[in-house]
Amino acid sequence: MISIDFANCLSSRVGAHGVDPAKISPGSAAADAIQSHTARLAKTRGTGWERWRELPFDPMKKDHLAQVKAAVKAAHGKFDNLVVLGIGGSALGNIALQSALNPATYNLQAPVDRKGPRLFVIDNVDPAYFASVLDLCEQQGGLGRTLFNVISKSGETAETAAQFMVIRDLLKKALGPNYGSNIVAVTDPAKGTMRQICEREKFTTLPVPDGVGGRFSVLSPVGLFSAAMCGIDIDALLAGAAAMDTRCSNPTLAQNPAAMLATLLVELGTSLGKPNHVLMPYCNQLYLLADWYRQLWAESLGKKNDATGNPVYAGFTPIKALGTTDQHSQVQLYREGPNDKVLGMIEVEHFSRDVTIPTGLGVDALQYLEGKHMSALLAAEKRATEYAFVDSLRPNYTIRMPRVDAHHVGEFISLWQIATAYAGLLLNIDAYDQPAVELGKQATFGLMGRAGYERFQTQVHGALGATEWVV
Amino acid sequence: MISIDFANCLSSRVGAHGVDPAKISPGSAAADAIQSHTARLAKTRGTGWERWRELPFDPMKKDHLAQVKAAVKAAHGKFDNLVVLGIGGSALGNIALQSALNPATYNLQAPVDRKGPRLFVIDNVDPAYFASVLDLCEQQGGLGRTLFNVISKSGETAETAAQFMVIRDLLKKALGPNYGSNIVAVTDPAKGTMRQICEREKFTTLPVPDGVGGRFSVLSPVGLFSAAMCGIDIDALLAGAAAMDTRCSNPTLAQNPAAMLATLLVELGTSLGKPNHVLMPYCNQLYLLADWYRQLWAESLGKKNDATGNPVYAGFTPIKALGTTDQHSQVQLYREGPNDKVLGMIEVEHFSRDVTIPTGLGVDALQYLEGKHMSALLAAEKRATEYAFVDSLRPNYTIRMPRVDAHHVGEFISLWQIATAYAGLLLNIDAYDQPAVELGKQATFGLMGRAGYERFQTQVHGALGATEWVV
Repeated sequence: MISIDFANCLSSRVGAHGVDPAKISPGSAAADAIQSHTARLAKTRGTGWERWRELPFDPMKKDHLAQVKAAVKAAHGKFDNLVVLGIGGSALGNIALQSALNPATYNLQAPVDRKGPRLFVIDNVDPAYFASVLDLCEQQGGLGRTLFNVISKSGETAETAAQFMVIRDLLKKALGPNYGSNIVAVTDPAKGTMRQICEREKFTTLPVPDGVGGRFSVLSPVGLFSAAMCGIDIDALLAGAAAMDTRCSNPTLAQNPAAMLATLLVELGTSLGKPNHVLMPYCNQLYLLADWYRQLWAESLGKKNDATGNPVYAGFTPIKALGTTDQHSQVQLYREGPNDKVLGMIEVEHFSRDVTIPTGLGVDALQYLEGKHMSALLAAEKRATEYAFVDSLRPNYTIRMPRVDAHHVGEFISLWQIATAYAGLLLNIDAYDQPAVELGKQATFGLMGRAGYERFQTQVHGALGATEWVV
Repeated sequence: MISIDFANCLSSRVGAHGVDPAKISPGSAAADAIQSHTARLAKTRGTGWERWRELPFDPMKKDHLAQVKAAVKAAHGKFDNLVVLGIGGSALGNIALQSALNPATYNLQAPVDRKGPRLFVIDNVDPAYFASVLDLCEQQGGLGRTLFNVISKSGETAETAAQFMVIRDLLKKALGPNYGSNIVAVTDPAKGTMRQICEREKFTTLPVPDGVGGRFSVLSPVGLFSAAMCGIDIDALLAGAAAMDTRCSNPTLAQNPAAMLATLLVELGTSLGKPNHVLMPYCNQLYLLADWYRQLWAESLGKKNDATGNPVYAGFTPIKALGTTDQHSQVQLYREGPNDKVLGMIEVEHFSRDVTIPTGLGVDALQYLEGKHMSALLAAEKRATEYAFVDSLRPNYTIRMPRVDAHHVGEFISLWQIATAYAGLLLNIDAYDQPAVELGKQATFGLMGRAGYERFQTQVHGALGATEWVV
């Protein structure tokens, strides 16, 4: 069971840079707020944009698991490569699950050592990158042994659409009329451009359920299909998420990890001048979970207007870091720069493997390392850094994960998703929209010549124009 | 030649959130300051902690190139895997060069397609990660065909020392008395723990030159050896750095890219409330250069005291992002959250490869993409995002790179290193120390039982102790 140790976020540890413990004690305004927000969330869960809360529970869970497992079974043994085409919420969760739950060397392993095909998640339209991955697939296994998992609710996201158009054409040329067997689309079950294409071309599809926004979709078929293809235990993942959901349905602040996390981060971010939120796992496998968290936290809470339309420019800047690595890169700033951050560390209690530092080097200065476990060094570095942060009055907390497995990663995902829902309520903003993304999309359409968006060409050139301010 | 377009950092584009053009015009205080700082840097270059300025020039260049090339030649054809053991400045540059200048699929390519051995840079003591890489090397080529490049000036960095002790023992057991042929150490040429070990065990060594700090060392043998082993053109890299150095020795602000970058970022960061500095390449290969930049910018400028000892808590928080990917993750926050960032974009003018989006899908909504280049879509997305930033009055600039090759990456590195030197002078802080890193190192020694550091055990336990603040 994941736990959060937040003593170092309190004024008792970091003085005026921390939260007064009285402010979060039973009977406090914060505790009362959580009680009422929890009651509200209990009512809204499973409705509107909060349908994601029900993903780890039946009937959604049962339906999705059955569909995903059937698609995985149908693909079993047929593919050497799995290429996910998606961006944002249609890629970050896939990357996070794979890097957290399979070894860093997964794609390099011999087929017999891997639990599934090589996995590539192409979440950009950099042509050199895209071409290099396609080349690799052609060389190793071939296009016929490559499954493309295109993920787009509407089918109109420009990046994913462009990628899809390229691979559809390549597959048609290489495989002829049966090219559709190499595509699994995750898309809207009823409507939209991608749905139309899938019906017309008879692709296997899996649903992006209604009411599940991109950044809340990792526990839907969006994230589950590629994970299951690579041997990740998706039942355990959902069970972990469900267990955390239950803990986070508790109206008592002191017993609800998501509510406590949201309360502390909002208080530190809004009243105590710490709008920058670092997430720093002491574990390589968890590093890319921080990218998933970055989208969730930034896009949900970064809002110009509150729920009543008043300008608030809310939001916190999520920053990913890695321990111990970033001790040698960012900790100088985190300790001596502006005191504008909350430092979230993640500690793993038991690693799946350990390495013993051997004896026999015979050098005095390194004697203290001999015979120790590498995990003990990692734990000491983390503890020492925590100590150094407190010494500089930098608020910090530790998420403790017993081990890195599907169950605990499921807990972690659910923890942050529910914390985001609470933070939205505490900030009084809509955590489920992303209005500021539209202008760039429309301007892209304009610059690319899409009919109906021509006016943006003039607007962009007018606003940016030519300039002498170049060096 | 790299150029910087900074029009969108000015008040003429982003109002009160930008720099008044008069403040950086000829004769301004900023222009005068740059004139005198440039004169000062011309005097200090090549001395003290500014010896890094001379790395791209003879005699340092000639000496290093000769030594590195001799070591590469001696290793030629003998190794399938190259494993760098280092952390912070002994790893970030290596990772950045490899990801910028070799394809993302490099390690997966067949040997005939690669320009050198597989490269792994293990910059952490996560035991599961470390073990997975060692397993891979044992399975693919074997330890006998694996070269370990240990990088540590002193040899006492705990993480690198622990890694080194493990691989030394493994190699001895696997290869017997000749195990030293599988180690190339980059370390202090004269003194220190690693130097002693190298002398005793007769390893091939390359120098970490005096006066070159970790975060300024990528253009020394620290970064050059692994790059050259993987076929990167290190002559072109240094030539690019030298060319940029020459441009950045110009005392005229408007003609000196590093001085302009530093002037704008310091002004925006200190007077205009933008202490968060995002670097967002629109190019996957350049993404990990942003990690190298993160260390340089954070550790150099994040300082509690100014040069006269007054507390200033200076520094800017470097944040890495990737275009277009993070348009679907961070841009909502960047446009509507707190206006506390400068957004640095990197644009590549010519990609090494391009992909044409095919015609023939026959879907109205996607018609506009047909026949276009993927690079055109990427460029349009970047331009559209720039427009959206300006529309929200968010200051931003574009570093334009003609193409991603060793020469231009050398320019980029030199640009930021020299900008850091200017920023240190503008902030009146010491850009070359990292005092805040010491406490964590000492506490780690204490917790690991190193003689002489016992007091830290009591101090850490006293400061952090047991706590009830867990949920």
